[in-house]
Amino acid sequence: LISKLETDRWIMMGLIGVAVGFIGFLLHQLIERIGDLKWQTTKSFLKEEKLWQGWLFCTGYSVVFAVFSAAIIVLWRPSAGGSGMAEVTGFLNGTQVRRIFNVKTMAAKFLSCVAAIGCGMPIGPEGPMVHLGAIVGAGFSQTSSSTLKIKLPFFERFRNPEDRRNFISAGVAAGVAAAFGAPVGGLLFCMEEVSSFWSRTLMWQVFFCCIIATSTSDIFNSTFERFQVIGMFGEFRTSRYILFNVDEAVDINVLMFIPSVMIGVIGGLLGSLLRKKILTSIQSAIVVKILRLLEPALIMLIMSSFAVFLPMAFKCIPFTCIRGNSGILSQYCVNDTTNKYDSHYVEENIFHTCETGSSHQNGSTLVYNGTYNELALLLFVSKEEAMKNLYLRNSHKMFGYGPLFVSLGVYFFMVIWAAGTSVAAGILVPMLLIGALYGRIVGLVMVDMFGVYMDDSYWSWMDPGAFALIGSASFFGGVSRLAPATTVIMMELTNDLKVLLPVMTAVMVAKWVGDYFTHPFFHAQLELKCIPFLDRQPHVTIHKRNVKLELFSAEDIMAFPVITMNRVERVTSIAHILLDYQHNGFPVLHKNAEGKKVFYGMITRSELLVILKHPDVLHRGRVDPMDDKNLEIAPIAYNTILKGLKLSEEEISEYLHEFISNNSEYKDYYVDLTPYVNQSAMSVPTKFSLHRSYTLISALGLRHLTVVDSSNQVQGIITRKDLMGFHMVETLSALINTKDYFD
Amino acid sequence: LISKLETDRWIMMGLIGVAVGFIGFLLHQLIERIGDLKWQTTKSFLKEEKLWQGWLFCTGYSVVFAVFSAAIIVLWRPSAGGSGMAEVTGFLNGTQVRRIFNVKTMAAKFLSCVAAIGCGMPIGPEGPMVHLGAIVGAGFSQTSSSTLKIKLPFFERFRNPEDRRNFISAGVAAGVAAAFGAPVGGLLFCMEEVSSFWSRTLMWQVFFCCIIATSTSDIFNSTFERFQVIGMFGEFRTSRYILFNVDEAVDINVLMFIPSVMIGVIGGLLGSLLRKKILTSIQSAIVVKILRLLEPALIMLIMSSFAVFLPMAFKCIPFTCIRGNSGILSQYCVNDTTNKYDSHYVEENIFHTCETGSSHQNGSTLVYNGTYNELALLLFVSKEEAMKNLYLRNSHKMFGYGPLFVSLGVYFFMVIWAAGTSVAAGILVPMLLIGALYGRIVGLVMVDMFGVYMDDSYWSWMDPGAFALIGSASFFGGVSRLAPATTVIMMELTNDLKVLLPVMTAVMVAKWVGDYFTHPFFHAQLELKCIPFLDRQPHVTIHKRNVKLELFSAEDIMAFPVITMNRVERVTSIAHILLDYQHNGFPVLHKNAEGKKVFYGMITRSELLVILKHPDVLHRGRVDPMDDKNLEIAPIAYNTILKGLKLSEEEISEYLHEFISNNSEYKDYYVDLTPYVNQSAMSVPTKFSLHRSYTLISALGLRHLTVVDSSNQVQGIITRKDLMGFHMVETLSALINTKDYFD
Repeated sequence: LISKLETDRWIMMGLIGVAVGFIGFLLHQLIERIGDLKWQTTKSFLKEEKLWQGWLFCTGYSVVFAVFSAAIIVLWRPSAGGSGMAEVTGFLNGTQVRRIFNVKTMAAKFLSCVAAIGCGMPIGPEGPMVHLGAIVGAGFSQTSSSTLKIKLPFFERFRNPEDRRNFISAGVAAGVAAAFGAPVGGLLFCMEEVSSFWSRTLMWQVFFCCIIATSTSDIFNSTFERFQVIGMFGEFRTSRYILFNVDEAVDINVLMFIPSVMIGVIGGLLGSLLRKKILTSIQSAIVVKILRLLEPALIMLIMSSFAVFLPMAFKCIPFTCIRGNSGILSQYCVNDTTNKYDSHYVEENIFHTCETGSSHQNGSTLVYNGTYNELALLLFVSKEEAMKNLYLRNSHKMFGYGPLFVSLGVYFFMVIWAAGTSVAAGILVPMLLIGALYGRIVGLVMVDMFGVYMDDSYWSWMDPGAFALIGSASFFGGVSRLAPATTVIMMELTNDLKVLLPVMTAVMVAKWVGDYFTHPFFHAQLELKCIPFLDRQPHVTIHKRNVKLELFSAEDIMAFPVITMNRVERVTSIAHILLDYQHNGFPVLHKNAEGKKVFYGMITRSELLVILKHPDVLHRGRVDPMDDKNLEIAPIAYNTILKGLKLSEEEISEYLHEFISNNSEYKDYYVDLTPYVNQSAMSVPTKFSLHRSYTLISALGLRHLTVVDSSNQVQGIITRKDLMGFHMVETLSALINTKDYFD
Repeated sequence: LISKLETDRWIMMGLIGVAVGFIGFLLHQLIERIGDLKWQTTKSFLKEEKLWQGWLFCTGYSVVFAVFSAAIIVLWRPSAGGSGMAEVTGFLNGTQVRRIFNVKTMAAKFLSCVAAIGCGMPIGPEGPMVHLGAIVGAGFSQTSSSTLKIKLPFFERFRNPEDRRNFISAGVAAGVAAAFGAPVGGLLFCMEEVSSFWSRTLMWQVFFCCIIATSTSDIFNSTFERFQVIGMFGEFRTSRYILFNVDEAVDINVLMFIPSVMIGVIGGLLGSLLRKKILTSIQSAIVVKILRLLEPALIMLIMSSFAVFLPMAFKCIPFTCIRGNSGILSQYCVNDTTNKYDSHYVEENIFHTCETGSSHQNGSTLVYNGTYNELALLLFVSKEEAMKNLYLRNSHKMFGYGPLFVSLGVYFFMVIWAAGTSVAAGILVPMLLIGALYGRIVGLVMVDMFGVYMDDSYWSWMDPGAFALIGSASFFGGVSRLAPATTVIMMELTNDLKVLLPVMTAVMVAKWVGDYFTHPFFHAQLELKCIPFLDRQPHVTIHKRNVKLELFSAEDIMAFPVITMNRVERVTSIAHILLDYQHNGFPVLHKNAEGKKVFYGMITRSELLVILKHPDVLHRGRVDPMDDKNLEIAPIAYNTILKGLKLSEEEISEYLHEFISNNSEYKDYYVDLTPYVNQSAMSVPTKFSLHRSYTLISALGLRHLTVVDSSNQVQGIITRKDLMGFHMVETLSALINTKDYFD
């Protein structure tokens, strides 16, 4: 029952999973290594009270990596810049984007991403991981690379557009799964956002790919830390594969929905603001190369200076730990204002410039006294550390308003700036950090109003750590506008299911508020990059009101006149058409019984080019078209047609010119296109509803929809570009003269 | 930007959420109340050593409820029987199923489900909750009920098929969400399994509906237990809203994938077996009413006898609890073979017929000694208790092979039997229980081979409780073949995210193994009930091989000749056609410039019936068809047409006969159908690929696809029934004569 082809497909999915998982592992460890070296060294400078040397090291180190990261993109592979998600989404929607699935792009993306995140730029790895996953999916499944001049003799039947697209979808999902240890989240993310075509079979295959990718990255990350072995191979350590593990989850309360809604509102507002600012900054991006190189350096200069000097504006807070009988520090330390934090900080003993403290005997108990700096726990650490600190439960007053607001401001503006630079970067992780900051602020307001409840009381839900988590989700939701994906990724990142309902509420509210102001970030990115993306449902707004597309018909939007061909066509006129028009597809006509030329099917540009390259199918003089039924003996093999010509634009143009030159031998040659025409090309009558035409094109992934009159004569053609938002608005505005066209 | 219509839609979603959540709460509490009374009373009989009285009560009580449950269905509303999920799925796929969204059906379903599950039948509430949710969605959104003779003046614009379908989808998702406290799981379940049409906007609305439904049921379930207040209103208690909360999650290990794969294989095998057996038993269901009534009674007689007498075949196991300093029993009790179980059993002190034990002072420690019966913890409790016991972590040898195999056998065969009876029932919860049983058996085998590791060692992943959870997931996956939905529901049910990867692996393997033998349970149910369900992708197998539908064309499967109409048609011939043919739609023709009759659009039976009911649009003598452009002044309002006639078949037939009777005044009357024809009806050429035709019909939810020749003349028509698996196999088998048609 399981065919060989299907088995091969599953094997390929597994291979992609392993490869993407391993890339995720390498990325994670390298980032960790670079980041740790930076902070450890800087901290040891500060410990020796060498403040300026510390700053110099911190800044210099960061700037070097930032410039390296930018240089790879600017000087080597500009196509690897940015997050790459828009390009992949566009590709999967049916748009051809050049040079995005390339080995060089992959290397550039990986290095740029590692360097930029490692040195502490406020960006995240999820966008690059999506792109890297897509490249792996595209490259593996084709077992060939034109850059590397490799073409392996395996899996050759996957060399077709549909399989390629499916493997790319799997790679995307695996990328998210590996980056966040979120297999279900990755699957849902790909389903909701990236992939336009989806079937049940594909879902299972992607599901499998995500399991493999997450297992691979989790198991290696559990075994190694900064490439040093920390455990037996095979063990999965919670602290290593659940990125922001929450230990003491609190039971929720119905009152918790009130602050959750507030956080959702903030998420929606900031989400829209962030989206507007980031996209503006991309638009006004400095084009001069040298400036593009220095921009990340400038960001890192500012960030490092903030990290080193800003904490000095805040006083050191004393805390006390009580050692247990066994002489080990109790897991958490408290002070009089119920500050609390993980004891691993105490062991490291480095809190920026604060005193490290000492132990002393108090009666029969061993007591440890020390001080810590609030802002240093947010700015003078990696983003991941900062988030873990923010998510910490039962730590109600660990951070005051000052440090929270300061870091919120710093991160918010730096993220906006950094996301517009040339480096390969996503914005998801910084988004989570920003969300956690304002979530904790809301939590702190609540605690200040109603008091601290650490016991198991009715009010114990009021934990700023839980609100930080809700804040992260709200900001993620407000920017991305994804429903199940956001929720599941947050759960998989934190392992806290109890807070699920408030998280969902915040995501929901953030979406509402966000939708009121802007449309989703990822879609806006697509528009900005001029990638013609067709949403499943059309949304056309004129004068801020939704237009009812049911009231328009196909003829209102179609392009005409249409360049057509006959079933038996003169070779020179084909060459002329191909040279004069850049259309990708041409309707083919045939004469019906009445002698009228009616719509017969479509033929694509690439098919025509291949046909012209086969002189044996060209006949001198006019021939009768082949009988429909004889398609099995088509003169050119289906696969040859499918592969297309591998020639550059110039070579093609030169070749076509040969046909139309005066001394061409093909002057009176004809070709019978019948065997190559796609007779399953859709056509609709002129009065066909525009809404339905749109659905047809987006749901079936069509590139051309021919419009015919009632006698089946071609009247016009609709392509994806005709259905782009701005084009529809322009065309329909001219037609609208009554109020009834609106929803 | 947010229109009034959209706001109303969100409000409606919220209302549906509240209603479904409240129904979920009522269902849960009633089942709990009925079940508790049964077990508490029986236990107290046994405590007084009145074994036979205990058996008599247990059996009598169960039989009364079982007969009541069956009687409601058999004698009152047969349409409320079974799970109802097949009917809802079919409806959402585009098939009209009669009497499924009815207030009486709802009441019958609710009562039957409560009685059957409450008395301990091995069935689950998820199927009925899906159906109840769908009824709420359908009824609320239409704010009308023909049974209750209610028609409220609100939300009237939701009275159209598309909105109704969307609200039903939301109700379905909310039903699952409320039944399992799984909001994301409910959403995904609806998306993957039940709903055939899905958009981004709908996803958000369903997401919202699920939040509300889960919050409502969780908050009430946290406040009440058996309708008695157990806590302050507003608190969510983990133990009440996470059904099978796992307390001590273990870190996983790569070796864990080996037993997970084995469990997956078992899940796939048993899943296929279960599906085959259940569907056979439905087929051979006894039709005689009295037998249908007694079948559940017989099941409960056997179940109760097993519950009371089987545990006596196993010896009582001694255990020891050590009281802490405060005099409270330590949470877990252990014995020498590291048996372990929740101390709340110890407090109740009732272990079937085993000795209850006593406390004594041992040196300075207070020790409690008692005995328990392994099988009683699985059979002599409710299914939920049994599952909690199976999922218990760090309880490696709490159950031996004997009790596990015995209960596996009992539950497996009883579930198969019970699922085929008349009561309203789903099989998800018993599926989870069966899965947990064999999962624990596999875990126990591992423990016997490699020993017990309770510490934090490399082998601590080998916990039979974790394998029970994996087993549940594998069986669920093996029967349902749903990917993200199964995984997320399992996570939301147990709050154990660490075991995610093995769970996903087991689900994956179970799906592979299951697919090798049978196709999914829910789909098989649809086929059995003769509901024409169109999957997104066609799968036609002839001689066990997949057929390539690309190689066939629309004309191969189309039905012909087609009953057509003219734009201006004689009233009597319309009446004749409607009487003679039961088709739901008719192509309408018009004369083109050459005088040929070409395809113009479709008109439905219900539209024609409405038109004939409006004498003012009928004209004496032939008229010219209206100009296309003047549709805005259609003589009959769009809404009137849409609503259709509310007449019985007999009334309609009588009415139509009036037109064709010899003394009819409409003898030479004509009607212009132009304003009512659907010009956006799709048509495809005869050579259009069959695969594409299928995709078109399933992706766009079409009911008719007209097939035309190259001059646009109607040649045939394809309806959903023509695309059903068996019909395609039959038609295509006749055409196939070469090997090349196969994949």
